[in-house]
Amino acid sequence: MQKTQLNVGLLGFGTIGTGVVKVFQKNADLIRQRTGVEIHLARIADLDITTDRGVTLPEGVLTTDADAVITDPNIDIVVELIGGYKPALQFILKAIENGKHIVTANKALMAVHGQEIIEAASRAKVDVMFDAAVGGGIPVISAIKENLCANRFSTVLGILNGTCNFILTKMTNEGSDFAQALAEAQQLGYAEADPTFDIEGVDTAHKIALLSALCFGTRIDFDQVYTEGITGITAVDIDFATQMGYKIKLLAIGKQGNGAVEVRVHPTMIPKSYQLAEVDGVFNAVRLSGDFLGPVLLYGSGAGMAATASAVMGDVMAIGRSISSGAVGRTPIMGYCQDQVVDLPLRPMSEITSHYYLRFTTLDTTGVLAQISTILGQHDISIQSMIQPESHAADSVPIVLMTHEAKEADITEALHEIDQLNIIQQPTCLIRVEHDLD
Amino acid sequence: MQKTQLNVGLLGFGTIGTGVVKVFQKNADLIRQRTGVEIHLARIADLDITTDRGVTLPEGVLTTDADAVITDPNIDIVVELIGGYKPALQFILKAIENGKHIVTANKALMAVHGQEIIEAASRAKVDVMFDAAVGGGIPVISAIKENLCANRFSTVLGILNGTCNFILTKMTNEGSDFAQALAEAQQLGYAEADPTFDIEGVDTAHKIALLSALCFGTRIDFDQVYTEGITGITAVDIDFATQMGYKIKLLAIGKQGNGAVEVRVHPTMIPKSYQLAEVDGVFNAVRLSGDFLGPVLLYGSGAGMAATASAVMGDVMAIGRSISSGAVGRTPIMGYCQDQVVDLPLRPMSEITSHYYLRFTTLDTTGVLAQISTILGQHDISIQSMIQPESHAADSVPIVLMTHEAKEADITEALHEIDQLNIIQQPTCLIRVEHDLD
Repeated sequence: MQKTQLNVGLLGFGTIGTGVVKVFQKNADLIRQRTGVEIHLARIADLDITTDRGVTLPEGVLTTDADAVITDPNIDIVVELIGGYKPALQFILKAIENGKHIVTANKALMAVHGQEIIEAASRAKVDVMFDAAVGGGIPVISAIKENLCANRFSTVLGILNGTCNFILTKMTNEGSDFAQALAEAQQLGYAEADPTFDIEGVDTAHKIALLSALCFGTRIDFDQVYTEGITGITAVDIDFATQMGYKIKLLAIGKQGNGAVEVRVHPTMIPKSYQLAEVDGVFNAVRLSGDFLGPVLLYGSGAGMAATASAVMGDVMAIGRSISSGAVGRTPIMGYCQDQVVDLPLRPMSEITSHYYLRFTTLDTTGVLAQISTILGQHDISIQSMIQPESHAADSVPIVLMTHEAKEADITEALHEIDQLNIIQQPTCLIRVEHDLD
Repeated sequence: MQKTQLNVGLLGFGTIGTGVVKVFQKNADLIRQRTGVEIHLARIADLDITTDRGVTLPEGVLTTDADAVITDPNIDIVVELIGGYKPALQFILKAIENGKHIVTANKALMAVHGQEIIEAASRAKVDVMFDAAVGGGIPVISAIKENLCANRFSTVLGILNGTCNFILTKMTNEGSDFAQALAEAQQLGYAEADPTFDIEGVDTAHKIALLSALCFGTRIDFDQVYTEGITGITAVDIDFATQMGYKIKLLAIGKQGNGAVEVRVHPTMIPKSYQLAEVDGVFNAVRLSGDFLGPVLLYGSGAGMAATASAVMGDVMAIGRSISSGAVGRTPIMGYCQDQVVDLPLRPMSEITSHYYLRFTTLDTTGVLAQISTILGQHDISIQSMIQPESHAADSVPIVLMTHEAKEADITEALHEIDQLNIIQQPTCLIRVEHDLD
């Protein structure tokens, strides 16, 4: 029994919701031509149904009662664009219980409560799609689940937060300090009034947790994802990075190997010549490496009304095609059959290896480098290159070292010892370096 | 009645075929975990079944009889990796008649005979997938058909031939001339012994014809696609391009607007700062613009055994998922429902507009620029910038002009007149410039 008309209920009529309405209105013919189904935006629930969003809707579409949408027997697909955990989770679970298919752009919810949603969906035999949760309009989630799925992925790297990337790009190109760049991002609407989730790396961590789960076929405990934001990045380090041929990016890193996964987010130096280093401003990019594929880079607008609405509607149309062809459940929600998803151990930060940029602030006296390098050597850390600039503040000398590959635990111990030396004036600055992209 | 084991028959055991065998052998567990189905490589047909390809196959898999594979009632999916038109087309049509689903990497066949294949597949209710036909491992075809399908695409641009891109990159970075760069490409295995299809732009034209059809929902008459290769590109023009801040790429261009499409392939100058200009060596990239999406760039290995095998297997797994969930035909072969595909007119080259790079070879005498610019002016062509280098061969002066946007017909007429002036010593060199990426 194939349906030829499907009804969509929208929860949340904010920026993205308005974008979704615009796609429905502008591209109704295209949606029908591509899917063979009439997909109709039937209901929209939001607490605020009076603000003018610049779109005209038929009488009766808007409601303040989300429950009325979720339980409406005519609704086939519920699109959740409220964001956050509450009440989005409750709404989604209730919609699933009512047999609705789900499309959501909610990365926080999927990263933290995804398992609960997936299990409920499996029981109810409905589809859940969340392509809009990572990378806005960039088709990365489906690429992992579908086109590239013959590959065993080794690495997924991402620049996944436009706010952070805008700030770091400003700092790099114009020498702004962090506060200036953040203020400008806020003025331009690229950063929220409270930018904490973005600049502390939490948003990026949600996204890499999802990408890693999709790539590696494992559940990721979000609380275990190492997350370091960009608030500690200074113009001084940006300047040294530039001198040494690097850019600093808030990089999301997922790796699989030796029976474990690494999932982490932190400011990272990348050689300037690498494509990821060229992803500037509010743009996002994801770089995937698979055992047959080689590296693939997907680049585009990572956020914004239109790009995110495009991804949401791609999911709605995918579910429309699946419903009309009787193919619900065709592609597993996380790209692996539910009973094949495993719990690979998450490698603790102390066990990762990386190259490191270290900036020491030392007294201007002799023997300083000898003391530092002795301790580094005792911890099996070898130095790849060094900069000691000629001009500096009186009595205070920066020494910048780039290490060869070293263990994080060794670096931590060495810095702990070094920072207790009385030649050291400030806690040493550490930035990880991603060098050896396979 | 869901099948839990599917059998694949492979036609063509060359480089890509060997790659496909390797994916089957290395990632058998992954294929099952991601699809929920055992997908089994049952038969391989090739005229040569004795050469050692470095892979071991069970007794009975290899055969020289393609017909035995095509008509084998146990085979569910036929993978065609023979290439070219004959006998690939006959094999595919016969396989379809026998109810087999088809995966092919054959861009020439799909671009030229796609319609016949699609119609046969529609009658037989089988799926045909050809993601490996464009961009090797880059997930561009499915992105257009699935994730980005809520967008009305305005432009698709591609660097789609690794051989040409390698040659142009060599010429740009090392000042090689065309013949040197081609010889090096052949030495490295990046160019065939007979490189005609690549360097004359035919391979690129096959690919952009397919991408344009997918993006714009129209049939493309391949014979009408304007195709100009890179054999006329000289070190002199590469050098001027560099001086003016451009790179020369063999660009595939698909555009839609005002009720018509443009599909063309020619050497094109792109501002150096554009991402497409940074796609160097044997890499490929596709840039898509949609009405909601904004620009998206997909980048990766455009060819080679492993990347292409990855794409072929992605298609095999997609069909595996569709068969096992009863979803055959879920996604239309060209991304639009078959009865919704139209025949938009293809804009003739004379009607396109572009910026143009023009290099005149003139006598070293006064009034030359005045004569040239007078004729250009008479044809509504205005000059944006000019270079006239100081040093040049005696009696012969190059004059390089960059025009504002102009009509191709006007340029053609103007150059026809100019090249008849007796101050002109050689036919004028014209390279189109892609400036205003939306």
